[in-house]
Amino acid sequence: MRLAIDAMGGDNAPEAIVKGAMEAVSSMKNLEITLIGDEEKITPYLKDSKQISVIHTTEAITAEEEPVRAVRRKKQASMVLMTKEVKEGRADGCISAGNTGALMSAGLFGVGRLKGVERPALSPTLPTEDGKGFLMLDVGANVDAKATHLLQYAIIGSIYSNKVRGLASPRVGLLNVGTEDGKGSELTKKAFELMSEAPINFIGNVESRDLLNGVADVVVTDGFTGNVALKTIEGTALTMFSMIKSTFMKNLKSKLAAALVKNDLKQLKNQLDYSEYGGAGLFGLAAPVIKAHGSSNGRAIYNAIKQACHMVEQDVTSTIETTLKEVEKVGGEE
Amino acid sequence: MRLAIDAMGGDNAPEAIVKGAMEAVSSMKNLEITLIGDEEKITPYLKDSKQISVIHTTEAITAEEEPVRAVRRKKQASMVLMTKEVKEGRADGCISAGNTGALMSAGLFGVGRLKGVERPALSPTLPTEDGKGFLMLDVGANVDAKATHLLQYAIIGSIYSNKVRGLASPRVGLLNVGTEDGKGSELTKKAFELMSEAPINFIGNVESRDLLNGVADVVVTDGFTGNVALKTIEGTALTMFSMIKSTFMKNLKSKLAAALVKNDLKQLKNQLDYSEYGGAGLFGLAAPVIKAHGSSNGRAIYNAIKQACHMVEQDVTSTIETTLKEVEKVGGEE
Repeated sequence: MRLAIDAMGGDNAPEAIVKGAMEAVSSMKNLEITLIGDEEKITPYLKDSKQISVIHTTEAITAEEEPVRAVRRKKQASMVLMTKEVKEGRADGCISAGNTGALMSAGLFGVGRLKGVERPALSPTLPTEDGKGFLMLDVGANVDAKATHLLQYAIIGSIYSNKVRGLASPRVGLLNVGTEDGKGSELTKKAFELMSEAPINFIGNVESRDLLNGVADVVVTDGFTGNVALKTIEGTALTMFSMIKSTFMKNLKSKLAAALVKNDLKQLKNQLDYSEYGGAGLFGLAAPVIKAHGSSNGRAIYNAIKQACHMVEQDVTSTIETTLKEVEKVGGEE
Repeated sequence: MRLAIDAMGGDNAPEAIVKGAMEAVSSMKNLEITLIGDEEKITPYLKDSKQISVIHTTEAITAEEEPVRAVRRKKQASMVLMTKEVKEGRADGCISAGNTGALMSAGLFGVGRLKGVERPALSPTLPTEDGKGFLMLDVGANVDAKATHLLQYAIIGSIYSNKVRGLASPRVGLLNVGTEDGKGSELTKKAFELMSEAPINFIGNVESRDLLNGVADVVVTDGFTGNVALKTIEGTALTMFSMIKSTFMKNLKSKLAAALVKNDLKQLKNQLDYSEYGGAGLFGLAAPVIKAHGSSNGRAIYNAIKQACHMVEQDVTSTIETTLKEVEKVGGEE
């Protein structure tokens, strides 16, 4: 198995990327990695490994660039060359911690959609209080989704959670404004009907209030709502940590308390850190494409690599293709 | 000025409602209140006040009932009779802590829309870290919003924040998946254009990650997204409080720390409690209709009453009507 990895993406590139890659090849003997990026900057961190090769390029897409334009213009960018490795069959999947929009664009143009998938979805695994996490899709690849897109997300998310996360019968919920059947917008009402007929364990509508309680293993929503929900979780958590910090700095008594629970609170913060759960899949493409968190350290990159390996080993992509074909056939026969 | 109040709505009815009403009339001499509900249950809490009268009814709508059906069938329900007081000119505004959907329904059918308003919006004031709060609309009255609805929310929210919250030039933001111009769904792109031309201080797109930092005074969004964002804030905050609690219960050291900061943490929880900021306005109706939080205590009801009084005194309703007419005129001339 071979993965192509954008060595120049993310806040800690290339150091974190190279370290993650080295950790991965040392524990997985059948894995080969192609790092794409500035050889001069990569080499200092790269210890001799027969399993890692480098494709040199000095061009890279920054976090601030307008995604679609950047991908079109920078044909030698590390991220663009990475998807080319997949497209031309030299890699089974790819990973970048760089510009999310650019990766969606490069994935779509470079790797291409899986046959039968109308729109790919960006799908992170988010933290829950019990530590199990849940998959949410879509969180922003497709902001004007149709009901059929949501149906596809449900099937894709269910297959991924089964094959890669090892859940026997993943509970799939539809994010909605109430839990009762028949609730919601025109979009969610239609999606509810389609999901009820799908070959998944559909548990009905779920509310965003219950997401972190693990109300479902897979939460399906349109890219606009998913993006808002994701960023609301992030923002609320950050604000609360900041308020807790101020609370602890208030006076001598609170400072003493802070000293007593410092490590426990750090652990709490880690529990909510979703880079711990691997990267976000760009599901619905012809091969595994993983978006690692921008702030990924070596460990997070290692986790993203393991995730991509599982997707390749478990043949997630072709299972999705086959299942979608079956569903379409059933839908056509009605 | 006279307000009609549903004495039977909310978890602590009628006690909290009656207490809030008594506190209000004792501090506002020009205020008269009509309480609607079961006289037998109300009287024990009601101390003699010439400013408070009671309309007796034993029918009430519960929190669990299907809103539209309940409002149609229960013609003698306290909430339904309350809106009738407004419609027939015996009250200037009304307040209920009961079933939100039913209040939207009763408000729409009973009080009626303000001329020129296409869809009313449910508009709570949510907490920010600095304690100033922000108005978000819509959070669920209208889940299939059009761009013109969002434009109206922007204008309504700006007028309310100016007249009632006393902000000279309220910063109005559009909730979106990125801060750059031109970002988002078809709906938000269109709304962005309309809001740019409106007589408001439009600051452009805002992200949900920044809501609790007070990025805007008024945040405009469709009812589906707003509902999800609101419930995500609630859910994330609750989960974090629960996790903090477990952290503090871990061992002897953490329990000691908990004892030291117990009161400070309680204060933190209050800071995030949005019933402190008054009730949610059902904006766009022909008179002020306020939804107090279901868990309202007497103080929260008092705050909701003050809020309704300000809306009446400041003539918010007719300012909205006049402004929307002006905007329509300008739009028509183009």
